[in-house]
Amino acid sequence: MSAPPKSAPETLEQTLAQVQALLDKQKLVETLVHRQGGPRHELVENLVHKQNLAELQKKLDELHPADVAYLLDVLPVDERLRLWEQVKPEWDGEILLEVSDGVRESLVARMNRRELLAAATALDTDEIADIAPDLPRDVIEELLASLDTQKRARLQSTLSYPEDTVGALMDYDMVTVRADVSLEVAMRYLRRLGELPDQLDKLFVVERDDRLIGVLPLKKLLTADPDSTVAQVIAEDMVVFRPADDAREAAQAFERYDLVAAPVADEAGKLLGRITVDAVVDYIRASSEAEMLSMAGLKEDEDLFATVWKAARNRWTWLGVNLFTAFIASRVIGLFEGSIEKLAALAALMPIVAGIGGNTGNQTITLIIRGLALGYIQPSNARRLILKELGVAALNGLLWGGLVGLLAYGLYDNAGLGGVMMLAMFLNLLVAALAGIVIPFTLQKLKRDPALGSSVLLTATTDSMGFFIFLGLATVLLTH
Amino acid sequence: MSAPPKSAPETLEQTLAQVQALLDKQKLVETLVHRQGGPRHELVENLVHKQNLAELQKKLDELHPADVAYLLDVLPVDERLRLWEQVKPEWDGEILLEVSDGVRESLVARMNRRELLAAATALDTDEIADIAPDLPRDVIEELLASLDTQKRARLQSTLSYPEDTVGALMDYDMVTVRADVSLEVAMRYLRRLGELPDQLDKLFVVERDDRLIGVLPLKKLLTADPDSTVAQVIAEDMVVFRPADDAREAAQAFERYDLVAAPVADEAGKLLGRITVDAVVDYIRASSEAEMLSMAGLKEDEDLFATVWKAARNRWTWLGVNLFTAFIASRVIGLFEGSIEKLAALAALMPIVAGIGGNTGNQTITLIIRGLALGYIQPSNARRLILKELGVAALNGLLWGGLVGLLAYGLYDNAGLGGVMMLAMFLNLLVAALAGIVIPFTLQKLKRDPALGSSVLLTATTDSMGFFIFLGLATVLLTH
Repeated sequence: MSAPPKSAPETLEQTLAQVQALLDKQKLVETLVHRQGGPRHELVENLVHKQNLAELQKKLDELHPADVAYLLDVLPVDERLRLWEQVKPEWDGEILLEVSDGVRESLVARMNRRELLAAATALDTDEIADIAPDLPRDVIEELLASLDTQKRARLQSTLSYPEDTVGALMDYDMVTVRADVSLEVAMRYLRRLGELPDQLDKLFVVERDDRLIGVLPLKKLLTADPDSTVAQVIAEDMVVFRPADDAREAAQAFERYDLVAAPVADEAGKLLGRITVDAVVDYIRASSEAEMLSMAGLKEDEDLFATVWKAARNRWTWLGVNLFTAFIASRVIGLFEGSIEKLAALAALMPIVAGIGGNTGNQTITLIIRGLALGYIQPSNARRLILKELGVAALNGLLWGGLVGLLAYGLYDNAGLGGVMMLAMFLNLLVAALAGIVIPFTLQKLKRDPALGSSVLLTATTDSMGFFIFLGLATVLLTH
Repeated sequence: MSAPPKSAPETLEQTLAQVQALLDKQKLVETLVHRQGGPRHELVENLVHKQNLAELQKKLDELHPADVAYLLDVLPVDERLRLWEQVKPEWDGEILLEVSDGVRESLVARMNRRELLAAATALDTDEIADIAPDLPRDVIEELLASLDTQKRARLQSTLSYPEDTVGALMDYDMVTVRADVSLEVAMRYLRRLGELPDQLDKLFVVERDDRLIGVLPLKKLLTADPDSTVAQVIAEDMVVFRPADDAREAAQAFERYDLVAAPVADEAGKLLGRITVDAVVDYIRASSEAEMLSMAGLKEDEDLFATVWKAARNRWTWLGVNLFTAFIASRVIGLFEGSIEKLAALAALMPIVAGIGGNTGNQTITLIIRGLALGYIQPSNARRLILKELGVAALNGLLWGGLVGLLAYGLYDNAGLGGVMMLAMFLNLLVAALAGIVIPFTLQKLKRDPALGSSVLLTATTDSMGFFIFLGLATVLLTH
């Protein structure tokens, strides 16, 4: 893909500090020039300025594009844009590929059409597809027009695969051999190619019509008798993916079988491309992050240094949902205002029932979301799982409900109140476990991400139900 | 590591269904034998039973150990143990390595010392170290005694590295060459080795004293002139890790530089082992899971089918913390029982203030935990981040606080109440943002996992403070 990394990972934080110091100095100089004016001053300042820039550029030249991307990810917006100006144009594409989504958006917004086109053209087709969602429509069209037929077809087909499929993660850097040649010939062929793609741990063995018939691991190529033919050492049982396969399942196959690269073929067995472990690692990272953000009700991968306005909007959808559900919970309490007026202790105790319900429900929902994501939960075992979670809830309800009941009794010297507290806790923990199971399962049935806003929905349920159960029981048993 | 996978990933769910059907049939037959008795019946049933077992074993033989591990992970405890009995002893070690922690515990509990010893002996030293925490003390001691000197030293040193360091992820399957030999000779050497380790994408070039001086990528070995020496094509700038390096940073380096394998050396540059992408993938998966579980207040990777008793205990620590904090919140409300008696609407409105605070705080804390985990948050940019989150909170506080205030005004036809609601929301969103930043930072300062129970701690803060701010303001401004 590109030059080997030139900095050890432990020095990256130091690099950040150095770059930031250089950017600060540069800013200072600019401010001084603006303020003081005068030809002599300007001359001196310009000199310092140029030295500074040269130093910064030297620093950047020493870095791997991925490290520059990290710096851009970590720097606040204005410093990020100043650093971006110093990046060599020929690295633009590589770096755009590596930065996080939010940051890419902010960088692309600063580039003109010509720059974007140049950056994209420097990339492989599968890489162009990765950044395409952030490029303006006209740039993509111009790009498509400029590519040769094969590349254009590949780009169009990569763009046509939905996110989260193997097709979207696929690249085209495969090396193929025929089954009837000798290993000696295969090795001569590799030598003639000169440059081999990264993550190449096996050659794909194909027939004349590009039909995939097996793989030749480099390990085999390097150790078997050079006079034997590819057909003699070929591995025929291999993991092959289809472009429409779920990326999540492909990632699990990579984890399970410790794969480095695997072929992608169509239904008829025709080789289309390959999927490599570095794409899988990026996918695993991105999807586990998306899951976490999604549980908390954050719409997308937020640039840590997004403007306040943008960041605020990213959080509105779920805040709105939360406000709506909070009002429902509030109306539930409103139903019982008469009881609360009679016994204000109810108001003090009700958040305990709701809060512990929310907490246990969150434990359940986290386990379920994780189980669904890893493929651990199947129709065949779902029933047992539900019974187990209800069992845990009942056990915890008895124990903690009892404890809470005793505390309430001690606090208010009211045995009836203690009993109501105990019963309400027990029931709300059952509600919490059920909600913790039903919410992610329902979201999945609706073909949505099971983690989507699950925390918000769960808390809404345990709050409303907790208030209703506790205040309802208290009204019937205590204040009537 | 082992035989190539024999089943495509898309059929694994079907395999599960088949295995479960066989296990069910087996159980049915056993029940019938028990119930009916009689020599003739027994004979027939035994025949069916044996056929069944044979079929099950044939099925298992076709599977990759990692797939068997998946089945064991997914099956409820009793079926899991029955399947485990059918696994060939020579696969025990490999499978123990692959199953999840909770499941491994349940399997190890069923094995005797001799079986455990046999299973562990079949593994590499770095693999033994992975399962060692779940093995009984006496098995480990016997194991250490049975290993040769080099293996024993390696096992002991791997065990001595803390979890989450490169040393704990390291393996010893490296292939080394000298710099002064020709590529031709290096290739002949590989052929003589016969079997090469998995994930081998480069040879490590060492001096006579095992000092690492560079790496020779297989790509280079395959394409460069066979008559050139290793020294001529060596890559000297490479990513090298120390055993004490943070595993998190190593994983980030693998992601950034798309590594497949990298050498691990000591301070003096002596080659100790290597770290491979499959270990990194497992680490990334495990640590992102741990983070999710930890946020929700779950102690450890829970076996989805753990007994109710065990699962309940796994959740007690944080339930206890939650109960304690809920009582504090309750006492806060208790302080204002007089005001609530006068104006019961306060009881109905206070959960809105607390709930939306909890929700926004969770959004902030999720972003911060993620930023810390990815190394995006550094001392140099922390201040800006705090200002941004406070800005978002203030903006959202004005907007949503205003909306909530209007709703409260409309609902209770009480302008004062609306105003108090607005002000309380605004202030509690600021508290939520601060808590969302301070909690993970403090946990990190205390050298704890920043995600540890963070959700529970955050909700505790936003609840107590939300009640205090709202009821306090109402008491001062409305009911006095």
